[in-house]
Amino acid sequence: MVESSEPARRPAEDPAAADPVYRDAVIDLLGVLSYGEISAFERLADDSKLAPTMQDKVALATMAAAELGKVDSLHGRIADLGGDPYAAMAPFRVAIDEFHRHTAPSDWLEGLVKAFVGDGLANDFYREIAAFLDPITREIVVASLDDDGGHAAFVVERVRQVIAVDPRLSGRLALWGRRLMGEALTQAQRIAADRDSLTALLTGGVDRPGLDLAALGRMFTRLTERHADRMSELGLDS
Amino acid sequence: MVESSEPARRPAEDPAAADPVYRDAVIDLLGVLSYGEISAFERLADDSKLAPTMQDKVALATMAAAELGKVDSLHGRIADLGGDPYAAMAPFRVAIDEFHRHTAPSDWLEGLVKAFVGDGLANDFYREIAAFLDPITREIVVASLDDDGGHAAFVVERVRQVIAVDPRLSGRLALWGRRLMGEALTQAQRIAADRDSLTALLTGGVDRPGLDLAALGRMFTRLTERHADRMSELGLDS
Repeated sequence: MVESSEPARRPAEDPAAADPVYRDAVIDLLGVLSYGEISAFERLADDSKLAPTMQDKVALATMAAAELGKVDSLHGRIADLGGDPYAAMAPFRVAIDEFHRHTAPSDWLEGLVKAFVGDGLANDFYREIAAFLDPITREIVVASLDDDGGHAAFVVERVRQVIAVDPRLSGRLALWGRRLMGEALTQAQRIAADRDSLTALLTGGVDRPGLDLAALGRMFTRLTERHADRMSELGLDS
Repeated sequence: MVESSEPARRPAEDPAAADPVYRDAVIDLLGVLSYGEISAFERLADDSKLAPTMQDKVALATMAAAELGKVDSLHGRIADLGGDPYAAMAPFRVAIDEFHRHTAPSDWLEGLVKAFVGDGLANDFYREIAAFLDPITREIVVASLDDDGGHAAFVVERVRQVIAVDPRLSGRLALWGRRLMGEALTQAQRIAADRDSLTALLTGGVDRPGLDLAALGRMFTRLTERHADRMSELGLDS
């Protein structure tokens, strides 16, 4: 089979479609990723109502719209692999909805920190997984993570401004960051326990290399470090 | 002064910037148009929560995101003309917010009809006004109206489906369409009464041609006819 550098639209040319176990795992991954974007849209659109100014509202709403804009290509890849995008998302709705239910911001600042920290954490995690994907899927996943740095810069600026004026806020927001990380890990574990196929993407299979326990540990260390970097970018302890 | 077919970025090359009365009117127009898009985003994002299925929710959320995506170029043109985009929107917030307050859908179907009819009516109106704009502004305004036909087709299909199953709904939705038109006219008149500069865009000025009363009347007839066409596309009386 000749591998093309162009995204293949016919399953016959697509190595991911040839291995049913891998194919199902990829459809799972694209399902959780795209439902994550849809629910991020909903949360950010809602949280934008807490904005103190019209400028702030538009900035967060624009982040919301950007999340939704990523869904199409993920759904397209699911369909190319013979899956149904909406069926693929269904198994992950509870975990992701629970994450948002447990991390509903109580004010505009918490919403901002959540937008920045939550999005960053998810991006880091999916970028780690991308290393184990076939080239076509990897390209689509990585493109969906491409963060428009401008929006993140807006959050960093706003949060730092507020903390400069009222440094006492930094304690509360640092705790909030820890809670976001904790909830994300809780729900990620829940998904990992429920969906063996997804876990197998990371840990490998009979004829597919993967991470051993030590490597998995190092991956989590990297994710935690990058989370700490992001918190300190906001001027917050992690 | 040489007129360029490329959008001019320097005021010196931009005929709209040379006439302060016209410039202020254009800034007003871009202000009301862009605040309309922002509030359409908010309403559609909210209304998408009423969706009976995840597919429907994503379809309406995608319409919401598309509205927001149009704001940037409108704000860019305001800034090019020396205006402040947020100051330009401020005078129109009450009228547009009132429109939405008086036309909050009570269910998913009313939300769908509002998305289709409201967006269509606004597009028709701004397209009429576009004829009186300088080429640079006209191009930006018309581009911001370009409807992604796919979304509208989704609404038409859904509404027709529902009416086919339960024809009694068509009476209620036809009334709802009339209410949307009535509220839109009420708020448009309010804006026209408050902002002479905007009215002058249509009626002309000392050295700018415009519509006389008869031509204005014909314009409203066209808007009403197109509204009726849209309602009948949905399978509804107007």
